[in-house]
Amino acid sequence: MSESPSAGAETLRALYADWSAVMTARPDLDIRLLRSLFDEWHQATTEPVDVSYAEDVVGGVPGIWALPAGADRGQVVLYTHGGGFAVGSAASHRKLAGHLAAALGATAFVLDYRRAPEHPHPAQVDDGVAAFRGLLERGIAAADVTTAGDSAGGNLAIAIPLALRERGGPLPGRVVAFSPWLDMTNSGKTLEANADSDALITVPLLEGMIAGVLGDTGAGPAVDPTTPLANPLHADLAGFPPVYLDAGGAEALLDDAVRFAERARVAGVDTTLSVVDGLQHVFPFAAGRGGEADAELAAIADWYRARRAG
Amino acid sequence: MSESPSAGAETLRALYADWSAVMTARPDLDIRLLRSLFDEWHQATTEPVDVSYAEDVVGGVPGIWALPAGADRGQVVLYTHGGGFAVGSAASHRKLAGHLAAALGATAFVLDYRRAPEHPHPAQVDDGVAAFRGLLERGIAAADVTTAGDSAGGNLAIAIPLALRERGGPLPGRVVAFSPWLDMTNSGKTLEANADSDALITVPLLEGMIAGVLGDTGAGPAVDPTTPLANPLHADLAGFPPVYLDAGGAEALLDDAVRFAERARVAGVDTTLSVVDGLQHVFPFAAGRGGEADAELAAIADWYRARRAG
Repeated sequence: MSESPSAGAETLRALYADWSAVMTARPDLDIRLLRSLFDEWHQATTEPVDVSYAEDVVGGVPGIWALPAGADRGQVVLYTHGGGFAVGSAASHRKLAGHLAAALGATAFVLDYRRAPEHPHPAQVDDGVAAFRGLLERGIAAADVTTAGDSAGGNLAIAIPLALRERGGPLPGRVVAFSPWLDMTNSGKTLEANADSDALITVPLLEGMIAGVLGDTGAGPAVDPTTPLANPLHADLAGFPPVYLDAGGAEALLDDAVRFAERARVAGVDTTLSVVDGLQHVFPFAAGRGGEADAELAAIADWYRARRAG
Repeated sequence: MSESPSAGAETLRALYADWSAVMTARPDLDIRLLRSLFDEWHQATTEPVDVSYAEDVVGGVPGIWALPAGADRGQVVLYTHGGGFAVGSAASHRKLAGHLAAALGATAFVLDYRRAPEHPHPAQVDDGVAAFRGLLERGIAAADVTTAGDSAGGNLAIAIPLALRERGGPLPGRVVAFSPWLDMTNSGKTLEANADSDALITVPLLEGMIAGVLGDTGAGPAVDPTTPLANPLHADLAGFPPVYLDAGGAEALLDDAVRFAERARVAGVDTTLSVVDGLQHVFPFAAGRGGEADAELAAIADWYRARRAG
């Protein structure tokens, strides 16, 4: 069944192990330097060929377009980066979004949404909704937009259509979430079961990120950690768009993707879940290295073609 | 004569001021985290439009091609990044090289040469020479190669042709150096005169970089700091290719560019020196923001067209 992770997957794992060593050696690293460190995320990904980039502001939200040569400019991936709502950037995820867009024959707009803790929940969801509506104002059809993201950005890729349904307006045609981080109560079984195999994610790290995005009263989060737009495991999923979820079998957040997929299926949502044994958090980050990440993007492209509008 | 620096120039200055604040607050930052911090250099530059990228290994040296749409693939900028030979990367300079290449109608290969202190001088020069020869092996004419770089990479852009002359073989057709850091003896007058206006460069910072690249015996550098391939202010410049140098009027390393230009002119070299009042170290980093950096790249393009082969 399972094979050894590829050299590309090992590149990503080694980056995470190095970050973990840095953070362990320097528990006093502040958000300024954590942002610098996590912007190295791009190092896991090769430069996708024949993709150019352009900075833009869509619906008031800055970001970077990834523009594969020959892509259909009417098909847009609205990409929300990971990093616990606090770190990561359009720059750190530019190449990953470029590979995804190229695989789909689409373009991608990678948001630099407002980050926590300066901007707590729901600033990130609000920015995602604003950018989605900005795309529609430019004449993109809602059904031709796919919200996509990883980790905390996978949460946002799911929360954006939930917020749109609540606030009124058409939903994106599809949702893609790489290793979504959904559970703001840290109740997933794999947090403990995969604690030894996950090279990056720990409960204390998640606790710090939760305090940042939901606010910290000293006695717990200021925002209820079961609020559906912050924790989509508690959302009503009736009418949710087709969703593709993936996760690595070695990661602590695996249970978030598994539980969301279960809930989505029960709600009648067209749900695909891909779990690849032995892999780390957001394994598609190793795109361009010929391993599991590229195979995953090819599988997402098949899924996409079968579900795109028209 | 002088106008206020543009908003783009201020973006670069503010980035330097922030790095300086971080380094002052944390004098214990090790090379691992300094590399993370200085990889933020790319933030000063916008994504150049219609430029794609490709990773490659040329002459055994890894790097990133910047490939402007419609560029002449036979005209190559061999770009060596700055960062005191110790920090910076092809990734941090990808966008700057992309803007330069696009302005020239050429491609650029941005080297990830071996960095100090793990790899002291002349590893960086050796890698530059190897990559230059690798381009020739691919059928690029030497006269169609321009070595270019900034800060310590500006030193390398000058040292590569000096080493080629010493070791035999044709020279590049042209040399471009943004704010080259040349003087390994810290004797420039602007180190003191511009100490207050330079937002980044300090003598202690340079001393640390010198110890890293030339080795540190405890009583001074292990390699003579007037070695011409490490300190081109001490090189014989007879027969050197046409050279374009620039520097900011506010920077501590201004005197390095000024002194090299004087020596090059005395040696009969076709020399252009552009100093822009009030600007910081490697001011072309603000490319894409419509200010002095873009005007500078346009001036370099004029210079290039008048001097390119054929």
